[in-house]
Amino acid sequence: MNRERALVLLSGGLDSTTILAMAISEHMEVTALSFRYGQKHTQELDRAEAIAKHFGVKEHLIIDLDPEPFRGSSLTEDKPIPENRKGISDQIPSTYVPARNTVFLSIALGIAESREADHIFIGVNSVDYSGYPDCRPEFIEAFQHLANLATKNAVKGNPPRIHAPLLYMTKAEIIKRGTELGIDYGMTLSCYQPNSTGESCGICDACTLRLEGFRANGLTDPARYRKTSDDD
Amino acid sequence: MNRERALVLLSGGLDSTTILAMAISEHMEVTALSFRYGQKHTQELDRAEAIAKHFGVKEHLIIDLDPEPFRGSSLTEDKPIPENRKGISDQIPSTYVPARNTVFLSIALGIAESREADHIFIGVNSVDYSGYPDCRPEFIEAFQHLANLATKNAVKGNPPRIHAPLLYMTKAEIIKRGTELGIDYGMTLSCYQPNSTGESCGICDACTLRLEGFRANGLTDPARYRKTSDDD
Repeated sequence: MNRERALVLLSGGLDSTTILAMAISEHMEVTALSFRYGQKHTQELDRAEAIAKHFGVKEHLIIDLDPEPFRGSSLTEDKPIPENRKGISDQIPSTYVPARNTVFLSIALGIAESREADHIFIGVNSVDYSGYPDCRPEFIEAFQHLANLATKNAVKGNPPRIHAPLLYMTKAEIIKRGTELGIDYGMTLSCYQPNSTGESCGICDACTLRLEGFRANGLTDPARYRKTSDDD
Repeated sequence: MNRERALVLLSGGLDSTTILAMAISEHMEVTALSFRYGQKHTQELDRAEAIAKHFGVKEHLIIDLDPEPFRGSSLTEDKPIPENRKGISDQIPSTYVPARNTVFLSIALGIAESREADHIFIGVNSVDYSGYPDCRPEFIEAFQHLANLATKNAVKGNPPRIHAPLLYMTKAEIIKRGTELGIDYGMTLSCYQPNSTGESCGICDACTLRLEGFRANGLTDPARYRKTSDDD
């Protein structure tokens, strides 16, 4: 039996590691895709590499992107990362990166064609998330519609399918599912501002959402923190 | 009066130079965007630079892209460029580049946000073209729909507008319009396989379409050719 081929967008965080484990549990042959896009927290790429290796993916590509489109964000520029925000606000936070998922999925679309991959997995979530426009269901639907038209494979009636299995899950549900799949979340790094030894801050949005998710499952987050919300 | 800002995708060819002239004729403040994506015919980037300078654009960005998504094309790999094809065939030719316009427009979407540009111009054409899926009206519509959802500016009700003014024009009409705008098409390079002195082949699809367009206008193409279809 030929295994189906999938590209999995892998940042090295909790969500993308969960979708990687999901794709592998569906017996797909995986190419993991990571991006160096000018993010300050490049440690996530080391984590992505270790995670891809741990899961024995067929191939792990780290794509270098010109940082020009991604300017203006506190993830890419010398601006403070928001801390200790309670819940999700209506405002899009400064950690928003312009057109990031549009660019990532576009690159994946090209690679899917050359790799003959029928599936693209992306770990976006629209429940416990930071309000980024390109993490919403309507964005994913619109990208699927674009993918249905954009490529030679699409014209031949075989566009890649965009999978966003975490889209409607809470962070707690994601962690529960990943734990069932045997993921050691200690490998993952979600923090927007880890220190040089790889310890997470515990107070950025990514850490806050993650810690709440573990707490809701009655679990302790195995990530290393230099300070947790619980210390406050 | 504040001038409206536009990004113009500029390859250095006939079509993109025409839309640059059109954007400027509409008094827009232009940032020209070119891409180094692994194309063999990198001379087009020198032309794009000269053209941007000639038109006095505010800024010209050449974005370096990892060639990974664009593999498999005869424009990026050591494969022969189709020659002497008559008319447009139903087959997508080997010069098709996977997801190229999707990636280019995605990058433009990010840059439009940081540059506060409300307009993105792309010189796609669905009449005298090579059958590329990402040059069709439905592709441009789908990308506009995506752009209406993807970014912070979109959420604020201000997505950039994608302009494809050449979409329904014949090559002859494009050349007529550009000539009216005073373009010296001798500056432009359309050929997929120019020689080292910048002479066009005259027999690839890009040259064939271009030569027919000038002929239909009763004009001589000012580009330098090492061999034209007329010589056959």
